[in-house]
Amino acid sequence: MITLERTIAEIRPRDPGAVAEARAHQDRLTKPRGALGVLEEVAVRLAGAAGVSPAPVPAPAALAIFAADHGVHAQGVSPWPQEVTQQMVGNFLAGGAVANAFATQIGATVTVVDVGVAADLPAAPGLTIRKVAHGTADLSLGPAMTVEQAVAALEAGIEVARELVERGARCLITGDMGIANTTASAALICAFTGQDAAGATGRGTGVDDDTLARKVEVVRRALRVNGLEGGPAVPAAGADGPDREGVVAAPAADGPDGGSEAVAAPGTGGPEASPALRALAAVGGLEHAAIAGFILGGAALRVPVILDGVISGSAALAAAALAPDVVDHCVAGHRSAEPGHALALAHLGLRPLVELELRLGEGTGGLLAHPLVCAAVRVMHEVATFDSAGVSEKEV
Amino acid sequence: MITLERTIAEIRPRDPGAVAEARAHQDRLTKPRGALGVLEEVAVRLAGAAGVSPAPVPAPAALAIFAADHGVHAQGVSPWPQEVTQQMVGNFLAGGAVANAFATQIGATVTVVDVGVAADLPAAPGLTIRKVAHGTADLSLGPAMTVEQAVAALEAGIEVARELVERGARCLITGDMGIANTTASAALICAFTGQDAAGATGRGTGVDDDTLARKVEVVRRALRVNGLEGGPAVPAAGADGPDREGVVAAPAADGPDGGSEAVAAPGTGGPEASPALRALAAVGGLEHAAIAGFILGGAALRVPVILDGVISGSAALAAAALAPDVVDHCVAGHRSAEPGHALALAHLGLRPLVELELRLGEGTGGLLAHPLVCAAVRVMHEVATFDSAGVSEKEV
Repeated sequence: MITLERTIAEIRPRDPGAVAEARAHQDRLTKPRGALGVLEEVAVRLAGAAGVSPAPVPAPAALAIFAADHGVHAQGVSPWPQEVTQQMVGNFLAGGAVANAFATQIGATVTVVDVGVAADLPAAPGLTIRKVAHGTADLSLGPAMTVEQAVAALEAGIEVARELVERGARCLITGDMGIANTTASAALICAFTGQDAAGATGRGTGVDDDTLARKVEVVRRALRVNGLEGGPAVPAAGADGPDREGVVAAPAADGPDGGSEAVAAPGTGGPEASPALRALAAVGGLEHAAIAGFILGGAALRVPVILDGVISGSAALAAAALAPDVVDHCVAGHRSAEPGHALALAHLGLRPLVELELRLGEGTGGLLAHPLVCAAVRVMHEVATFDSAGVSEKEV
Repeated sequence: MITLERTIAEIRPRDPGAVAEARAHQDRLTKPRGALGVLEEVAVRLAGAAGVSPAPVPAPAALAIFAADHGVHAQGVSPWPQEVTQQMVGNFLAGGAVANAFATQIGATVTVVDVGVAADLPAAPGLTIRKVAHGTADLSLGPAMTVEQAVAALEAGIEVARELVERGARCLITGDMGIANTTASAALICAFTGQDAAGATGRGTGVDDDTLARKVEVVRRALRVNGLEGGPAVPAAGADGPDREGVVAAPAADGPDGGSEAVAAPGTGGPEASPALRALAAVGGLEHAAIAGFILGGAALRVPVILDGVISGSAALAAAALAPDVVDHCVAGHRSAEPGHALALAHLGLRPLVELELRLGEGTGGLLAHPLVCAAVRVMHEVATFDSAGVSEKEV
C-alpha cells in the first residue's frame, strides 16, 4: 500500500507552461497550422506530461505483457481453453507471437509478467514472476480479488514500470494475456462509467451469439453481486479529468502502514479501501490491476504510457479513478473492435491513434501506435520554422 | 509514350493463388482469426501484388516528392504565395520539413523531383530535375497541360520509380508539393468519379469561406471549360476494379511510335489520347501526372506503392483509369481531412490505414503508414502457428 500511495502522490498533472510553449512552437513550423491534425495534440500532450517542450522523443519503448487467469472462465464466456494463457506466455517467451513481431519492428523490449497465471511457470529469460494468485475468483459469484490482492497486483505493475525505466525505457506500452479477460474488462467499464452490461460487452476473440448473450448476463450478475449496479463507482472525467479520489475512502490516513505492505493493505487493519479500489478488486483481473499500476508507475516517473486495447482501457479507468492526473501521461494507442473500449476512451477523454479493427490484445495496438507517437514528437525537434527555412507564410 | 505503354502492359493483377495462400496462412497463426483486422487484409493484398505469400517485407522505403506549380493559382484559390513551392523544395533538400522527419524515422530516402516548378532550380543532392514546364496553364481557362506534357510527366514518374527500385527500394511512397494543387486534385476527382465540385473541393491548407466558395466555382468552371461535366470520364471501379481503358481511345495502335517519345505522343500524329489521359491533362497538375506515373512504375515492378493524401489519391484515379490493375499494388496510407480524398479512396476501393486529420501532403501520411504496412507483412514471416507453438485452438 505504501508503494501505491507514494506513487500516486508523485503523479503531477500536465505542465501548462510546457503545453503553451509546445502549441506556440507547432505554429512556427514550416507547415500550415494544424496540418498534422491529431499528431499535433499528441506532441502537445507529451510536452505537458514531460513538463518540457519539446518532450523527449519517447524511445526506446518497453512492452510489458501482464498475464493472468480468470475464475469467470468457468461460466463459459470464452471458447478458448484456460491453458491458452499459459501457452501464449510460452509463445511470447519464444518470440513467436504477434506482439513479438511488432516489438522487434520498433526495437521495443518485451517483458512478460506472471501476476496470476493459473499454472506455475518455470523461470525463463524475459519472464518476471510476480504471481499474486493462481487466477482470480469468479467475479460473477463475488469479488474476483481481495483488496489486498488488487493492491499487490497494482504494486507489481508499479515496480515493473520502475524497473523498465531504470533499464532505459522512455516509453511504456501496456500489454495483456488472459483468457476470459474481456469479460472482466466489460465489468470494469460498467463499474467505472455506469454503462449497462449490454453496451460494454463484446465478442472478445470472436464468440458466437449464444456466448455473447451469456457473457452479458455474467457481467450483469457480476455488477449485481458486487454492489456495482446503477451508476459509476467514481465520477466521470470532465474537461479537467475526474475528481481525485485516491486509494482510501478517507483523506490519506497514516494507518498502520509499516514495513510490510501486506500488513498495511486496507481491509486488514488499514483505512477502508476507496470505492475505486474496491470496484477494481471486485470485477477486475490481476492483469487489469497490474496494468493500472504500470500506468501509475510510468506517470509517476513522467514516462509516457501508450495504452493498448480494451483490457488496458478498462485498467486505465481504474488508474484514473485512483489518480486522475494519470490520464495526462497516457496516449491511447488504438481503439479495438470491442464496444466497451470506445466507452472507456471517451470516459478518459482520449482519442485513439490507430483504428484498424484489431482485437488481439498483447499490446499489439500500443506497439503499432508507437511510431506515430514518436513521429509527432520528432516534428518538434527536427522541423524547421518559417523563419529558419526562409519559407513565406500564408497571406492573411 | 512508349515508356508509358510498356509500363502499363507490364502491370499484372493480384495473383489469386498467393491471395488464397496468404489467407490460409493468416488463419494458422497464433491469434484468433481476423484479430488483426485491417492489417490482415494488407498482408493478403501485398501477397497478391507480389505474387508470392508471404510478400517480402516492404522495406526499405523510398519517398518521392513531386513538385510543380499551377496556373490556377492566379484565381486566388490559395492564401499561400506561389514561391512557397520552390521554398519548400529548398526545405526538403535541407532536411527541414515534416516529410524529412518522418522519413528519417522509418529509414526512407527522400527524392525531390522538379516536374514543373515555376522557377529554375539549381542542381542539388536529392533533387531530380525532370521539369516538363514552368507550371501548368490555368485549368479554369482551358487544358492545364497538353497531352504531350502529361505523358512526359507520367514518364518522369515511371522513371523515378524505376531508379528508386534499382537503388534498392522495396516500397514506394508518393509525395507532392505544389501550391494550389488541392484545386487540381478536386477537379481530377470530379472528372474521374462524376462527383460535383462542391462535394470534392475542400479547404486545402485551410482557406476561409470566401476562398472555398471561389475554389468550388473555379473547379466547376474547369470541368465545364474542359468538357468534363456530367459523369465520370472513365467507368467506376467495380468489385474487380474499373474496366481497362488504356492510354489510347482505340485498341493499341501501332501508329508512328518510333524512337522519339515526343514524336510518338498522341495529338502529334499518334493515336488519339484516351479520355483518361485527356482528363488528366486537362485538369491535373504536372505532379499529379508524375505521381500517376510513379504508381504505374512501382506496380509494373511489383513494388508496392503507399499512397499519401488527396493529391496522390486523385493521381491514383488517373493511374487506375489508365491501368485498372494498378490498384492491386497500392495501399492507401491515410485519409486526409480533404473531402475529395474519401471520394477518391472509395472509388478506388481502398481503405486508409491512418486517419488522423492530417492535411499536409509531402508524403507525410504515406510515411506514417509505412510501419503499419511492414508490421502487417512481418506477421506473416515471424509469427508462430498454433501447431508450431503448441498453443491450443479455440473449441468449436
